[in-house]
Amino acid sequence: MSYSALTHHFEQQHHLQHLGAICGWDQATMMPSGGNQARAEAMSALAVLSHQQLQDPKLADWFASANQASLASDQKVSLAEMHRQWRDATMLPSDLVGALSLAGSRCEHAWRSLRPANDWAGFLPLFAEVLNLSRQVAAARADVLGLSRYDSLLEQFEPGMRSATLDSVFNGVKQWLPALIKEVQDKQGSEIVLQPQGPFAIEQQRALGLDVMALLGFDFNHGRLDVSVHPFCGGVSEDVRLTTRYDEHDVAQALMGVIHETGHARYEQGLPAQWRKLPVGQARSMGVHESQSLFFEMQLARHPAFIAQLSPLLERHFGTQPAFAPDNLAKLYTRVKPGFIRVDADEVTYPAHIMLRYEIERDLIEGKLEAKDLPERWDQLMQRYLGLSTQGNYKDGCMQDIHWTDGSFGYFPSYTLGAMYAAQQASAMQQQQGSLEQLIEQQLPSIFDWLQHNIWQHASLLDTDTLIEQACGQPLNESAFKQHLQQRYLG
Amino acid sequence: MSYSALTHHFEQQHHLQHLGAICGWDQATMMPSGGNQARAEAMSALAVLSHQQLQDPKLADWFASANQASLASDQKVSLAEMHRQWRDATMLPSDLVGALSLAGSRCEHAWRSLRPANDWAGFLPLFAEVLNLSRQVAAARADVLGLSRYDSLLEQFEPGMRSATLDSVFNGVKQWLPALIKEVQDKQGSEIVLQPQGPFAIEQQRALGLDVMALLGFDFNHGRLDVSVHPFCGGVSEDVRLTTRYDEHDVAQALMGVIHETGHARYEQGLPAQWRKLPVGQARSMGVHESQSLFFEMQLARHPAFIAQLSPLLERHFGTQPAFAPDNLAKLYTRVKPGFIRVDADEVTYPAHIMLRYEIERDLIEGKLEAKDLPERWDQLMQRYLGLSTQGNYKDGCMQDIHWTDGSFGYFPSYTLGAMYAAQQASAMQQQQGSLEQLIEQQLPSIFDWLQHNIWQHASLLDTDTLIEQACGQPLNESAFKQHLQQRYLG
Repeated sequence: MSYSALTHHFEQQHHLQHLGAICGWDQATMMPSGGNQARAEAMSALAVLSHQQLQDPKLADWFASANQASLASDQKVSLAEMHRQWRDATMLPSDLVGALSLAGSRCEHAWRSLRPANDWAGFLPLFAEVLNLSRQVAAARADVLGLSRYDSLLEQFEPGMRSATLDSVFNGVKQWLPALIKEVQDKQGSEIVLQPQGPFAIEQQRALGLDVMALLGFDFNHGRLDVSVHPFCGGVSEDVRLTTRYDEHDVAQALMGVIHETGHARYEQGLPAQWRKLPVGQARSMGVHESQSLFFEMQLARHPAFIAQLSPLLERHFGTQPAFAPDNLAKLYTRVKPGFIRVDADEVTYPAHIMLRYEIERDLIEGKLEAKDLPERWDQLMQRYLGLSTQGNYKDGCMQDIHWTDGSFGYFPSYTLGAMYAAQQASAMQQQQGSLEQLIEQQLPSIFDWLQHNIWQHASLLDTDTLIEQACGQPLNESAFKQHLQQRYLG
Repeated sequence: MSYSALTHHFEQQHHLQHLGAICGWDQATMMPSGGNQARAEAMSALAVLSHQQLQDPKLADWFASANQASLASDQKVSLAEMHRQWRDATMLPSDLVGALSLAGSRCEHAWRSLRPANDWAGFLPLFAEVLNLSRQVAAARADVLGLSRYDSLLEQFEPGMRSATLDSVFNGVKQWLPALIKEVQDKQGSEIVLQPQGPFAIEQQRALGLDVMALLGFDFNHGRLDVSVHPFCGGVSEDVRLTTRYDEHDVAQALMGVIHETGHARYEQGLPAQWRKLPVGQARSMGVHESQSLFFEMQLARHPAFIAQLSPLLERHFGTQPAFAPDNLAKLYTRVKPGFIRVDADEVTYPAHIMLRYEIERDLIEGKLEAKDLPERWDQLMQRYLGLSTQGNYKDGCMQDIHWTDGSFGYFPSYTLGAMYAAQQASAMQQQQGSLEQLIEQQLPSIFDWLQHNIWQHASLLDTDTLIEQACGQPLNESAFKQHLQQRYLG
């Protein structure tokens, strides 16, 4: 009885989250700017309400009673995931949740115009308030969970992950990454790579994106593609809302962005239907989510066999040109060059962007770094890891990402965890089914079937370690990722 | 204290309605079809939640206490409007509200494909369920309000309006309308009217619509224009979402539709900012709302002086052609011809469509007509009022409107009430400020200022009778409407 009551309660929560997800998508893609104040208030009211509902005193009784009940094993996992969400919510006071949601909406909205204007002074007070409230959240969570402040935030996105593990994995990466970047750059120095000649009309780029989404098995009856400043995959699993952004002079940005988000989308669309309204039916973690987008974008789309299929699609939409030859595209899409922008970074330098953000956000949350000192620290670490200066260049520096504007501290490590999980999955898939080259050329859908079987269908029914070990035969480690990079870039 | 508590409570309700309004808009404009089941469930959960919140037992105490408090006069009106909304909600059991919302979403969604397929058999069971639940709602409301079942539904859209009043006004219209239609048709029989030659590219039609919205003072920082099967004005007053539909062979449909919805939109955008989150800050009634859309579409946009401004806009977007000459457009846009489709009907035959629907929905709700007998009754009344048969033609007959698909019985009379209120407003405006011709030619914004001053800013601070009498110097009556039609069509 109490298990059913909890299930019903969490299903109702899911329906509210559905409305919030669609309105969040609308806010980023459709809403005129003048609507923001009212929308921010409405989203904040929803966050508070959702939070209040989780704080209903009945739930504590239900959990106590359900824990004594005789349940099937999947029901036990569902109960545990409901409990995790409940525990996460009830450890925070409602007004703190509401205040962070409101400050986050305001900061994020302002960021959309302040970033292009490189306006750090305008951004700082809004960001400082988000940081201030995020620290309060971290402190409250840390108290209850018995974790460090930063780990208590990490736990929201990567259940079970700790900064000690991250330090160990990232220290491993630091052993070989700088040398690898240098070696690849040396090797690529002599390569001749043709840049595709634009402009590439946005309508055609959109049509190309839709074609590639179809090739990747995106279900258009349960989702759509739109435009936003910062691309994301939102909506609900029955109606997945992808976004991208277009640059008339760069066809790769939107194309690769769409492929990346399609990886997220297929995970969402592939979640098990019978659990969709419950916490256990959601994606396992942000790192696992990112492993799907990076599987699509890196393991799959940058594979020469897949590029051989992209080439005729590009020609269909933009006509023939030498730069669209498969060999040239392969060189172009695996070009390694340290740059300012994380979302434009290549596969090899990307982990450097993440390690930088990880160190900064950890210090911001632990109180070892203040908001006003962010640009300076950013500049220092960019110089150290990638040899680039962002002094005075906030828009391509510490103001480039959306994450911190709404208080999503603890999220960034998921990107590189995702890259590692994706490499482990690709390695296991090839051991079981044959080379990616063969699979892409002869049976592309079997790749998605493998992911459906090994990742998507499990939603949160397994913990991350079990999921990865069961799919890949090994726990998290950096060696498949290292091997993949070496083989692709130096092989 | 209790007044403040109520105010806060209703503001929270408003925030949830905001999310529902945006998701409702999304459902009609953006959502892929496969997302409907989940959306319908989420919208239903929101309706139930919103309803439950209004049923919070605290509210009864707060109302009792606030009624004793010393309040400013506008606070008293705000309190009364909150009380009306509370009374409306608490007289219905939550599961009935949820069931109607779910059945309505299902029926409306199915209707979007069943109507074009002329599939009455597929539609009937869905519609019968909506009717069944609507009758239960009407019965519950009637009991509490001491009204007839139909009047209890009418009260939702037109507070204070009764079918006795409608009967009296509509009987008045029936005295002169048939003869007027005939006389106008005789007069127009000899006119030569050129049809604009298409096709009219949809992108250009959209651009024209945006131009006309700008001319009419629509605030694009607080709203946008999109496409849906059945045009509507949704969203919230800070972010008004207009929709239209385009026909490549008919430029007038979308153009006049956009003008109509812009009338709704400006009312919404003109509501007083300080009351926006409360019931008293909402539009007075559906009839008053429709008076604004019909003021824009009929009184204003079909006036020869306004047509003289539309003509060059049409030419700008579609080039010059003889049909775009102002004289011809004026004839074209005031052409009277009995037809099947209400939304395409001219100003003169429109009331016949409404009187038909009024009589049918009254009988459906009062139990004097069953769902299965709807097509036959529709055919009978169409023959009687407009001399047309809809036998076997459901899509252009009883399946043409969205209203009944989601249970909005009692809404249709608002359209003709709106036409009458609009005529009264135009008449009063001209007595106070000079002829519409002069105003349109020389000071278009002063027309909107008059509406802002006399209608929009009052929101629900005045009851409908007071609002109309104060603005127009007379209560509701059909004579200004009759005079307007006679002058425009026979003058």
